[in-house]
Amino acid sequence: MATVSVHPAWLPTDVWRPIGSRRVRVDVSGTVREEVRAACANHGGALITSGHADLIFALDSADGDGYAITREPHATTVTSATHAGLLHGLFATVRLGEAAFTPAPPLRSRPAFARRMLDHWDNVDVHPVMGQVERGYAGGSLFWRAGEFRHDQLPRIRDYARLLASIGINAVALNNVNVHTTEAHLLTDRLDEIVLLSEIFRGYGIRVHLAVTFAAPMLLGGLDTADPLDPAVRAWWEVTLAQVYERIPDFGGVLVKADSEGRPGPFAYGRTHADGANMLAAALAPHGGVVHWRAFVYNHRQDWRDRGTDRARAAYDHFTPLDGAFADTVILQVKHGPMDFQPREPVSPVLAAMPGTRLALELQVTQEYTGQQKHVCYLAPMWAEVLGFRPRGAEGATIAGTVAEAVAVANTGDDPFWTGHPLAQANLYAFGRLAWDPTLTPAAILDEWLGLTFDAGDGLRAAFHAIMGESWRTYERYTAPLGVGFMVRPGHHYGPDVDGYEYTPWGTYHFADRDGVGVDRTVASGTGFAGCYPYPWSEVFESVTDTPDELLLFLHHVPYTHRLRSGRTVIQHIYDTHFAGVAEVERMRDLWRGLKPAGLLTPELYARVGELLDEQVRCAGEWRDQVNSYFLRKSGIADNRRRPIH
Amino acid sequence: MATVSVHPAWLPTDVWRPIGSRRVRVDVSGTVREEVRAACANHGGALITSGHADLIFALDSADGDGYAITREPHATTVTSATHAGLLHGLFATVRLGEAAFTPAPPLRSRPAFARRMLDHWDNVDVHPVMGQVERGYAGGSLFWRAGEFRHDQLPRIRDYARLLASIGINAVALNNVNVHTTEAHLLTDRLDEIVLLSEIFRGYGIRVHLAVTFAAPMLLGGLDTADPLDPAVRAWWEVTLAQVYERIPDFGGVLVKADSEGRPGPFAYGRTHADGANMLAAALAPHGGVVHWRAFVYNHRQDWRDRGTDRARAAYDHFTPLDGAFADTVILQVKHGPMDFQPREPVSPVLAAMPGTRLALELQVTQEYTGQQKHVCYLAPMWAEVLGFRPRGAEGATIAGTVAEAVAVANTGDDPFWTGHPLAQANLYAFGRLAWDPTLTPAAILDEWLGLTFDAGDGLRAAFHAIMGESWRTYERYTAPLGVGFMVRPGHHYGPDVDGYEYTPWGTYHFADRDGVGVDRTVASGTGFAGCYPYPWSEVFESVTDTPDELLLFLHHVPYTHRLRSGRTVIQHIYDTHFAGVAEVERMRDLWRGLKPAGLLTPELYARVGELLDEQVRCAGEWRDQVNSYFLRKSGIADNRRRPIH
Repeated sequence: MATVSVHPAWLPTDVWRPIGSRRVRVDVSGTVREEVRAACANHGGALITSGHADLIFALDSADGDGYAITREPHATTVTSATHAGLLHGLFATVRLGEAAFTPAPPLRSRPAFARRMLDHWDNVDVHPVMGQVERGYAGGSLFWRAGEFRHDQLPRIRDYARLLASIGINAVALNNVNVHTTEAHLLTDRLDEIVLLSEIFRGYGIRVHLAVTFAAPMLLGGLDTADPLDPAVRAWWEVTLAQVYERIPDFGGVLVKADSEGRPGPFAYGRTHADGANMLAAALAPHGGVVHWRAFVYNHRQDWRDRGTDRARAAYDHFTPLDGAFADTVILQVKHGPMDFQPREPVSPVLAAMPGTRLALELQVTQEYTGQQKHVCYLAPMWAEVLGFRPRGAEGATIAGTVAEAVAVANTGDDPFWTGHPLAQANLYAFGRLAWDPTLTPAAILDEWLGLTFDAGDGLRAAFHAIMGESWRTYERYTAPLGVGFMVRPGHHYGPDVDGYEYTPWGTYHFADRDGVGVDRTVASGTGFAGCYPYPWSEVFESVTDTPDELLLFLHHVPYTHRLRSGRTVIQHIYDTHFAGVAEVERMRDLWRGLKPAGLLTPELYARVGELLDEQVRCAGEWRDQVNSYFLRKSGIADNRRRPIH
Repeated sequence: MATVSVHPAWLPTDVWRPIGSRRVRVDVSGTVREEVRAACANHGGALITSGHADLIFALDSADGDGYAITREPHATTVTSATHAGLLHGLFATVRLGEAAFTPAPPLRSRPAFARRMLDHWDNVDVHPVMGQVERGYAGGSLFWRAGEFRHDQLPRIRDYARLLASIGINAVALNNVNVHTTEAHLLTDRLDEIVLLSEIFRGYGIRVHLAVTFAAPMLLGGLDTADPLDPAVRAWWEVTLAQVYERIPDFGGVLVKADSEGRPGPFAYGRTHADGANMLAAALAPHGGVVHWRAFVYNHRQDWRDRGTDRARAAYDHFTPLDGAFADTVILQVKHGPMDFQPREPVSPVLAAMPGTRLALELQVTQEYTGQQKHVCYLAPMWAEVLGFRPRGAEGATIAGTVAEAVAVANTGDDPFWTGHPLAQANLYAFGRLAWDPTLTPAAILDEWLGLTFDAGDGLRAAFHAIMGESWRTYERYTAPLGVGFMVRPGHHYGPDVDGYEYTPWGTYHFADRDGVGVDRTVASGTGFAGCYPYPWSEVFESVTDTPDELLLFLHHVPYTHRLRSGRTVIQHIYDTHFAGVAEVERMRDLWRGLKPAGLLTPELYARVGELLDEQVRCAGEWRDQVNSYFLRKSGIADNRRRPIH
């Protein structure tokens, strides 16, 4: 078979030219020095140990993994207290390009979150339903194929670690949170594979974590219980994890999805999530490891007839009573919205309700509900909104200022472009950059990514901004309206099926009838979800007139003739946004077709994006027509512009 | 592993007692003699060659596979012109029981259809989506498991052949009409497996057929075309089929699904279905084989927005222009309804429109859309309606009098009860009996099956009739209303999803909106489908007032307030039938629970049926609630009895 050439993403050789064409001194050994050595070999510079250096990398006594870049007339100096920080300084210098060598005030940067983590949902075996990578849209796993570790992929995995390090990622959970039988063995008899991966990631300052099954003491240890208060269970975890640390001294810890969607957990033994998480924390803490415990717990066998149960409340109701009960080395990992990574949800109230608990904000870079890496959907604007949300109003802290960590589900695989859709690389890039600095604007991040990836001139840059910049809002326009969510095809979650989840056990309903649509989550007449927020959002969300339009149907059931804050009726808004959304995708495609890619984009990339935009146009049209037809048939209210509805 | 004990179905040892306890002379060698020998060994009688016999089997010079049973005071004589006919006479004697030995007028029986065929949809490999048996609800295949022929199952396959022979089946297509790559090889390098099976079935008077892919000359023969007019293609089929006949001299022929749901066919070469079928017929005819060519051809990539295309017309439009163009040894195999085995459809107009073509009526014993052998759904009443339908009105011929053959998709597998639901055995039994004699009533067949299977006393017999007799109409009541069809979950087709197929490419729509529901298939304002029927049905179906209620929504789009011939409105009919249907299922379950099974039913069978009735109650309730909620939300019209709708 021919070797598949892998796209360099945002680290093509050329971005190393400003460094690699200079005289550089690196006062530490390790990855920074090797990267500089390679850059100089490619671009005619020199890695030197004495004499004048244009660029110097040196350790200093500052705190943590931040770095400083001092740009003086004759030399630029990058310093950090740690090798990992120096590595981040190196990649910051790459991002600066020639500007790194122009005198300027010192640039000091420290990450907003100490841990910036990527969760892989990779399976070892091909799962009969979920495949090699659960919710993966970028080919197979980089690590495993059909049950076997991919020894032949170690060089590519190293490239991957480098890409992650270059955007500040410093922790990776390697396997799917739904831990099936084969994958459970990664903790024990398949630990060799994790050792190999840890050696690669360690070079780039990244610690590896494992998703584990709560039932591991039974499945792997032969015990007849996994009760977290059982001494034999506790002993099994202590011994097992100690054995992991013997092989991987900087092992990050474990990630657990427990008592969620059928996964085992402490409930079976009448124990709490805190009992379960703290038991694992006790085994890990002596070695410096942590527990990531997911808050994604809800009744996935709900009776759709039961209007009293509200999945949006589930994590809040399960976890807020446990605030303060978790050990310091437990991080409760909370999805950004109360449901499940829909294109538009309110920020999860859990994030504002557990001051006594270390929280991680969980984002989804893999585009499960946002176009599955067939659609251009640049997600940084959504994440920036979430990170900047102030649950206690304008004077209160942001989410970024509230949570301890940022975690995201990876969108990468063995696809030649890493991410299926080449432009989906920007989402991974943006996650890393926002996790380092949540105050960066999505447009600035996109521009940075563009500059590195394509060495783009102004024309190309403008086109990419026009195609990608607003693409999340465009996606929102042609899919489920006004925050109501879950109008996707059940199972695979791609494309429209307005009633697809309406009569299912999944707790995901829109309650559309001939008169109106939406979920009443008010305290006054609904599920009380609005009351889970602190003031002022509890009042904003309680009010049908104050709730922002884009969340109206998440919080209220209203008639089709209800007037939005925009002045339009709900039904006309549905029609207008769906026609507009598709028109925007058509414009995106036309812009792409109009590009003159020669010399700037490879033919493979240009063709791939073009084909995917065709599919996006098709699929967006399907969304428009199904949603519009559904609501016309139900409401009987004609589009005031008489556009075609079927 | 413990041996799984297999249920004897309608041939338990005891049904052989009347024969096996007597002195019997069999004037031919072969299966009849061996069956009698075994019966006598079990029940104390004797297989004799001279002296007085109570029962005599002898060949005579009558025509065909019929038989005569002459019951005189001192002896009963069974005669037929063929060994197969004698075998049918033997099983008729079994059915008669002791009555076979009571003097009575001679009983002469000849089959209505010369070929009575069962199509297995068994795969050799486990298909990643469709499994080992496509639309199979009775465990694995009797013939293959995970790619391997089941040599260890030959005794069970012999029992199966015996069951089929006992109800008059004389042809079996062994593999799925969707012929995937592995299965294609059954025709050539895996022919050994078919030879083995043919030897077993031959003993019971059953000829084996194979489903083949039209692309076989390319897939197996290495040709670059499968054009039916290409001499190399014709030669390949001639040689290949001749090789089959060298090994299986009574090979029945081939079954082809071509240009349907993605299967290859003659269209790729600009040829007609007749070109394709006749080419195969030419290769088979010299050996006495036939072609079964399926008429299930439609556009499965229809645009749901396109109201002009009507899948119900597809087979009619494709095939009626070819009437008279097919060779005599081509049998066009036509599903009983114009769509796809829904619980209620009009009889396919194709069956009345091709007088110059040999037609087979295709029924579906496997319960794809009728409860998947989790629901009790005795289908003989539906089949009897189809067989008795007179397309040209009261003076015209019935469907039974029009078609040349009856074919059905099998519902059997390696389940210990053969059919998953033990009571689904009755459907297989009824198909065989109706294919022999379409004038038998469903109740009489059910009673016959009951008597053989359970040696049932009057109480048990009454309970079974109450549970099974009307179960098809019960199923119809709680599922899609008034013939509209396709409200099942896409993909697996089990349970409700009212809009599941509404916006798909499958051509299966109900067009429900806030005002009404149904498909306008009239000539006057719809797709013209009603005009595909001869008079008087063309006029009956054209008229919204004359169309029978149970087919109303198949043929007309009407307001929810439309009054049915029953006097009820459509919406009230939907509510009433759905509440009634579930109440009937609950009554069926209560009846079952009230049975005193000891001595009459095995604990395994009693438990299995009981569990499945629980599931039927659950699923029927889900149908009721989803359908009622859907139409209440859409119509806004309350149930006039104010029963709970969610």
